Amino acid sequence: MVGLGPGDAALLAPMAEAALAEAHCIVGYGPYVDLVSPALLAGKDVVATGMTGEVARCRAALEAAAAGRRVVLVSSGDAGVYGMAGLALEMLDAMGLPQALEFSVVPGIPAVCAAAALLGAPLTHDFAVISLSDLLTPLPVIEARLEAAFAADFVVAIYNPRSRKRSGHLAEALARAARHRDPQTPVGMVKNAFRPAQEIRLTSLAQADPDWADMLTLVVVGNSSSRLAAGRFLTPRGYAGKYALEG
Amino acid sequence: MVGLGPGDAALLAPMAEAALAEAHCIVGYGPYVDLVSPALLAGKDVVATGMTGEVARCRAALEAAAAGRRVVLVSSGDAGVYGMAGLALEMLDAMGLPQALEFSVVPGIPAVCAAAALLGAPLTHDFAVISLSDLLTPLPVIEARLEAAFAADFVVAIYNPRSRKRSGHLAEALARAARHRDPQTPVGMVKNAFRPAQEIRLTSLAQADPDWADMLTLVVVGNSSSRLAAGRFLTPRGYAGKYALEG
Repeated sequence: MVGLGPGDAALLAPMAEAALAEAHCIVGYGPYVDLVSPALLAGKDVVATGMTGEVARCRAALEAAAAGRRVVLVSSGDAGVYGMAGLALEMLDAMGLPQALEFSVVPGIPAVCAAAALLGAPLTHDFAVISLSDLLTPLPVIEARLEAAFAADFVVAIYNPRSRKRSGHLAEALARAARHRDPQTPVGMVKNAFRPAQEIRLTSLAQADPDWADMLTLVVVGNSSSRLAAGRFLTPRGYAGKYALEG
Repeated sequence: MVGLGPGDAALLAPMAEAALAEAHCIVGYGPYVDLVSPALLAGKDVVATGMTGEVARCRAALEAAAAGRRVVLVSSGDAGVYGMAGLALEMLDAMGLPQALEFSVVPGIPAVCAAAALLGAPLTHDFAVISLSDLLTPLPVIEARLEAAFAADFVVAIYNPRSRKRSGHLAEALARAARHRDPQTPVGMVKNAFRPAQEIRLTSLAQADPDWADMLTLVVVGNSSSRLAAGRFLTPRGYAGKYALEG
């Protein structure tokens, strides 16, 4: 299992690159496979499938591995954060293959850290990571997690904020945040972090436009201490209460 | 701001390495500076300070940058996750230097993803990241966040679980988890992920030994669906309810 990070080759660690270089077979969602450099794909079996093909992808990867091939299943970001590591492990178990296979995960830079780096320092205190996709999770569970995270003053990082079928979920999540947070609380939205089409919006709960987000946008809502500092999104850790920070 | 990831050079992305290579001055907590390869430190001003020297470190870095030098302030993991990015941004603002300086963050692999990779796939669903350090955060705030995260069925990743002064916090956090979770819920603990002294414990809420953890251990407590699969820590995403996963 290899997470490709944000997609920029300069953010792919040597360990991940080596795993790709040594693979016989590379399996993944088409647009993620496209993030792998052509030099690393050359001469390999490449299996690229569509968006809802996760189960087929994992099965192809595990069957190839069971046949003795060295297989890399790629995710974007980190393979363990809403990535394929979980499904692959679950199917490895369900298919009864654990003895035959060696399973390992090479960690990567998750989308939440890539977006945070571009926004400033929004994650410098406790945070919750929540996906708004209700394809596999009942909406009431998602809503209860949002409510708990805002009420307990977590910074909240939102994956999968919108899709054509779920156009209202992000607006509802921001409205929920507004019941717990000041209207000036920073809200950051990042599309295509560290890719050519990168777009960053740093705004506030009062001004945030949920319709700007798409399925791949990462949204960060601050906690009660978050604010703008030097034009960036800052969540202070609490040093100012104990130390003099001025020059 | 550069996060060095877990510390293994094979997990340091080229963008971070280039920032270090191009710096005039590298500033950080001593043990983190020691993670930088000697070749990257050679010929540079290196400022390594002690554990509670964060404010002094940031001031040194910002003053050098204000004097026109290219400075890298290093953190372990990701610079934005309990790292130095927040304090640096806060002091940049407090010291009134924003116009003079260019501030940027190179994302890294956070400790939570490194630990998760070694445990299996514990973070494949919504998760909360909480530090048990009460040096800068009141204990009741930490306890309220733990309570909210366990009650709303987040996977919970715990940073800074123990220190000499806080020997009981992790035991209390696990006892709190046990009021919301089955005793068989997986608990993973990882020390020194991807470093020579790496140690991994995969156990359960009933069996977990909080005294094994130290300040740098990363602890992950599963949600109500988490279980062992093929000997690893799995948090299923929910595919099994919609698809046939067997071979």
